[in-house]
Amino acid sequence: MTEFSPPKTPPGHVLILGDATPLPLDSGGHLGPFPLAYSTYGTMNAAKSNVILIAHALTGDQVVSGTHPVTKRPGWWDRMVGPGRIIDTNRFFVICANVIGGCMGSAGPAAINPATGQLWSADFPFITIGDMVRAQARLLDHLGIDDLFMAIGGSMGGMQVLQWLRDYPQRLFAGAALATAARHSPQQIGLHSIGRRAILADPHWQDGRYHGTGHAPIAGLEVARMLAHLSYRAPEEFDSRFGRALQDRDQPAYGPGIDYQVENYLAYHGRRFVERFDPASYILITKAMDYFDLAPDGDLAARFVGARTHMFLGAYESDWLYPPAQTQLLADAMARADVVHIHRCYQAIAGHDSFLLEIEPFDADFARFINEMATKRGLPAPR
Amino acid sequence: MTEFSPPKTPPGHVLILGDATPLPLDSGGHLGPFPLAYSTYGTMNAAKSNVILIAHALTGDQVVSGTHPVTKRPGWWDRMVGPGRIIDTNRFFVICANVIGGCMGSAGPAAINPATGQLWSADFPFITIGDMVRAQARLLDHLGIDDLFMAIGGSMGGMQVLQWLRDYPQRLFAGAALATAARHSPQQIGLHSIGRRAILADPHWQDGRYHGTGHAPIAGLEVARMLAHLSYRAPEEFDSRFGRALQDRDQPAYGPGIDYQVENYLAYHGRRFVERFDPASYILITKAMDYFDLAPDGDLAARFVGARTHMFLGAYESDWLYPPAQTQLLADAMARADVVHIHRCYQAIAGHDSFLLEIEPFDADFARFINEMATKRGLPAPR
Repeated sequence: MTEFSPPKTPPGHVLILGDATPLPLDSGGHLGPFPLAYSTYGTMNAAKSNVILIAHALTGDQVVSGTHPVTKRPGWWDRMVGPGRIIDTNRFFVICANVIGGCMGSAGPAAINPATGQLWSADFPFITIGDMVRAQARLLDHLGIDDLFMAIGGSMGGMQVLQWLRDYPQRLFAGAALATAARHSPQQIGLHSIGRRAILADPHWQDGRYHGTGHAPIAGLEVARMLAHLSYRAPEEFDSRFGRALQDRDQPAYGPGIDYQVENYLAYHGRRFVERFDPASYILITKAMDYFDLAPDGDLAARFVGARTHMFLGAYESDWLYPPAQTQLLADAMARADVVHIHRCYQAIAGHDSFLLEIEPFDADFARFINEMATKRGLPAPR
Repeated sequence: MTEFSPPKTPPGHVLILGDATPLPLDSGGHLGPFPLAYSTYGTMNAAKSNVILIAHALTGDQVVSGTHPVTKRPGWWDRMVGPGRIIDTNRFFVICANVIGGCMGSAGPAAINPATGQLWSADFPFITIGDMVRAQARLLDHLGIDDLFMAIGGSMGGMQVLQWLRDYPQRLFAGAALATAARHSPQQIGLHSIGRRAILADPHWQDGRYHGTGHAPIAGLEVARMLAHLSYRAPEEFDSRFGRALQDRDQPAYGPGIDYQVENYLAYHGRRFVERFDPASYILITKAMDYFDLAPDGDLAARFVGARTHMFLGAYESDWLYPPAQTQLLADAMARADVVHIHRCYQAIAGHDSFLLEIEPFDADFARFINEMATKRGLPAPR
């Protein structure tokens, strides 16, 4: 059992922000100075009017496209982002920052606190989606970008897009929020809570001060990931993909271990995940998602009133984790608030993860949305 | 952390079966001699024609009705079974046996093997639903009961009823299978596999040989139970019952522990469960459910052909763990096999656990079914 270590040279760029003015946090504390690691793709135009911010999900990071230097696999949305792709890096300047609380170079429990030269470990503060977005706004400030052409994200990335819309509507020309919700439901909180419990119950958790001890609650994180992964897919996909097929055997093993392919699949994703993720980051970020509630008083439309942002909302029929009804609530509120928006629900059997995968009607709709927005923004056609 | 110990005097009766003829197991092994603990309610008539077998679910036991001597709480179907209740113990003789592999007095890892005088622990064989039912048939043989008036069960109890129908149709006048399936789906297997993984990852698991060491994988079992409990309920119930209410606080704690009521609820059910359940039994019984497949070749109707049993099938709309479509497949197969059956799907927001709760239309339908069957069987009206 080894401990996750963040890459010494995280992919892309690292800035130290919040040195002069620490970042205020929703918990009441402050963060600063803090590193923020980000990747960019394409070239910013002189007017800085072609900037797309992509916000990653819970276990994503800033490597959207190209080969991930840690995992050696394609970035998490490589199919979508690149020269000539739907998010065309010949046309747009794409930024993706590792969220604060993350573990791929941005400030988090596994990162070194520039103020002390020591690992943050359990001293890293608990954060919110609002805090993540505030840190991203600091990054734009630093880069001299007044406003975004578009912010795009799915799942927790979608929460960040909605938070941008609520907190900085004047800085957001267009936005796309996929497979997401305006608030975490009790079932969503419950699923996260069980994953956290698996980590906290692992004796290597050591009250969160395991960093640098050579032992980490990896077994607990594997359980959390197996559960999360199951929740990201749909039963109809499991039926067609695995059925009741046994793993490398003709008969059940009649023992406590793995019998079925679906078990092996979940265990595989658990093992892979712990190579690239810090358990304390997992606790922090799932908490940030659970805390997410764009309108605690229930008046979601009031949060959107006055926004001139053009929104795209996408949901997926088999997504039982972020069911389409949650996106419907967003669309209803945007309608009441007169926010121009497109709302689509797609047939797809891969559940929540469908937002990452090729769904032809989504790809067509989304390409059209981006092109129309680019035209509206006066961006030249791609070279 | 303490270890679960089975009650020295389990509720009801305990028989030692399989002494002369060990019970053949689907894994190829044998079990015997083995204890089988069971409870009875009501009085058997002279013709032994009023016997109802109730089969319990994964974490149930033989205490269907009355006060459970271990938990001091009502039995798991107390509302349904008793004098004047729907399963009227003034009219019927009700038997419920703790399944083999269980931990309330029947043979299992936490029980003493009569052949050795030692705890079975990890030497207890892995079993199937077919094995559980075969052990129940031995109990009936011992009691001189040729055939059952009715077998009733929900979830894993429903699997046992279906197994009775397949293996002993001539011994089954009527049957009721609620919130169940003819085979475990890959999602159902996956959910169980994650719970097992939490137990196996607990250092106190000790390769299953923890019994008598004073340490048991209780922390892992708590995680498994939290997940199971979440899967037994439905998101719409969580929405109306908990919403996003915080637990005993006005603001989030901004720490790794419990913030929301739904988290506290799941943790509570985890804690309660480990007081009465053995982790190794949990592993064994979830495996038995995963192995369950009434018709591995897919020809379910062929398994029912010729059965003259009258069946009642009940499903619940919000049950996402055993979705109504699984019961529909059973009904379709019974229709093809000309098995007389009633098939109902009930509106209910409590998910899978709805089968345990008062759902008025179900109660009415089920009372009618039992009465009609009793009349058909020639049983006198209740005193």
